[in-house]
Amino acid sequence: MRILVIGATGTIGRAVVKSLGMRHEVIGASRQRAERRFDLAEPDSIRALFRDVGPVDAVVSAAGAAKFAPLAELSDADVQFSLANKLMGQVNLVRYGAEHVNDGGSFTLTSGVLSHSPMPGSAAISLVNAGLEGFARAAALELPRGIRVNVVSPPWVTETLIAYKMDPAPGRSARDVAELYEQSVEGYETGQVIEFPST
Amino acid sequence: MRILVIGATGTIGRAVVKSLGMRHEVIGASRQRAERRFDLAEPDSIRALFRDVGPVDAVVSAAGAAKFAPLAELSDADVQFSLANKLMGQVNLVRYGAEHVNDGGSFTLTSGVLSHSPMPGSAAISLVNAGLEGFARAAALELPRGIRVNVVSPPWVTETLIAYKMDPAPGRSARDVAELYEQSVEGYETGQVIEFPST
Ligand SMILES: NC(=O)c1ccc[n+]([C@@H]2O[C@H](COP(=O)([O-])OP(=O)(O)OC[C@H]3O[C@@H](n4cnc5c(N)ncnc54)[C@H](OP(=O)(O)O)[C@@H]3O)[C@@H](O)[C@H]2O)c1
Ligand SMILES: NC(=O)c1ccc[n+]([C@@H]2O[C@H](COP(=O)([O-])OP(=O)(O)OC[C@H]3O[C@@H](n4cnc5c(N)ncnc54)[C@H](OP(=O)(O)O)[C@@H]3O)[C@@H](O)[C@H]2O)c1
Repeated sequence: MRILVIGATGTIGRAVVKSLGMRHEVIGASRQRAERRFDLAEPDSIRALFRDVGPVDAVVSAAGAAKFAPLAELSDADVQFSLANKLMGQVNLVRYGAEHVNDGGSFTLTSGVLSHSPMPGSAAISLVNAGLEGFARAAALELPRGIRVNVVSPPWVTETLIAYKMDPAPGRSARDVAELYEQSVEGYETGQVIEFPST
Repeated sequence: MRILVIGATGTIGRAVVKSLGMRHEVIGASRQRAERRFDLAEPDSIRALFRDVGPVDAVVSAAGAAKFAPLAELSDADVQFSLANKLMGQVNLVRYGAEHVNDGGSFTLTSGVLSHSPMPGSAAISLVNAGLEGFARAAALELPRGIRVNVVSPPWVTETLIAYKMDPAPGRSARDVAELYEQSVEGYETGQVIEFPST
């Protein structure tokens, strides 16, 4: 398959590129460091990316930022940033990208554990993650030509917990998490939230 | 209790006003027909409503519009409308309203069955409904002074199905649905999606 990986230079994205790259042709995209540069928060930039890359069999997004902040300090701008970036950026990958994906291809978006297991400070992120999951459940019913869409909900990633100086014990390695993306790309599911069983 | 009901003139809102009004002081608000007029999609209008109404014990929202349209026809403007109205309108009720709610008070927002049981055409609505549920789960952890927040996820309402000339059989009456709002306002739950058990 020819696979476009958004956020290819990130903690999760690098592991996804490595694992999918063993069996597929991978094109990496991100804002600053990948082979293809674009801005997920800018609709026109997403459209240009798809035009430049041409037809693909799968689009995988392991990108998208949303604001972590106490609810009382979350500003209107913080909320708008979160909606425009992680939520609408990924929704727009599907909306604008569908015509560039080959028959039977797929989209894989990223939400996260905070969708259903929130913590103080996660209101904007929990909103965005859950919204992505609701969108994918519905969009799966309407994508044409057998195109599928799933959302991977990663657990905390060990490498991220270490970088934030948090206890890495509850985390899973980026390499393990990459398997959830493989499952979405290479499997037959659609409209699903793909995650590890909760322990 | 002194309760502000948003969408008081709607199919669900009228039933909520009737049932809560038996035991509580209810102030009805909506865009056109209620005693208090405001626009849920305009942040400044929400702020003015709370200033005018003064302290309340509960805010109940049975309002919020989002666009029903085939995915391929859903425009950027349709998505923005849905985010600004049903999603951010209700999120902003909590963000701007918290300081106007008395200790131990509550917010009750409205999502809907399409969050988890989508149908073709519901992509924007499913996104918005699920996003509201994710927001409430997280915001519940941070609201001050014992203030609670829940989301009622109504099933299809009989009166609505009849108005749309659809089969009313799977629906529940607005009066039954109003009980879900009573449960949120008068109970002790927080961060919950309140719905009828699926049959
Ligand atoms: N890591 C975790 O523990 C964890 C857990 C649950 C969910 N998640 C979610 O998983 C996703 C990826 O997380 P991560 O930890 O791998 O993130 P990360 O290490 O910060 O990587 C983010 C990636 O997105 C790219 N990017 C950032 N802003 C962009 C923009 N505006 N346009 C295009 N690309 C952009 C970055 O590329 P450049 O730097 O090259 O621009 C990078 O490739 C995020 O949505 C995150 O919320 C992560
Ligand atoms: N009915 C169902 O079967 C069903 C099922 C699941 C979920 N829901 C959800 O439940 C909520 C209420 O549904 P409903 O059927 O009762 O709706 P409805 O009958 O159309 O009533 C909508 C209410 O919201 C008010 N409103 C509309 N736009 C507004 C705005 N911009 N600012 C302030 N108020 C506004 C209307 O007031 P005015 O006309 O006076 O302005 C009215 O009181 C909606 O979010 C809907 O998605 C409904």
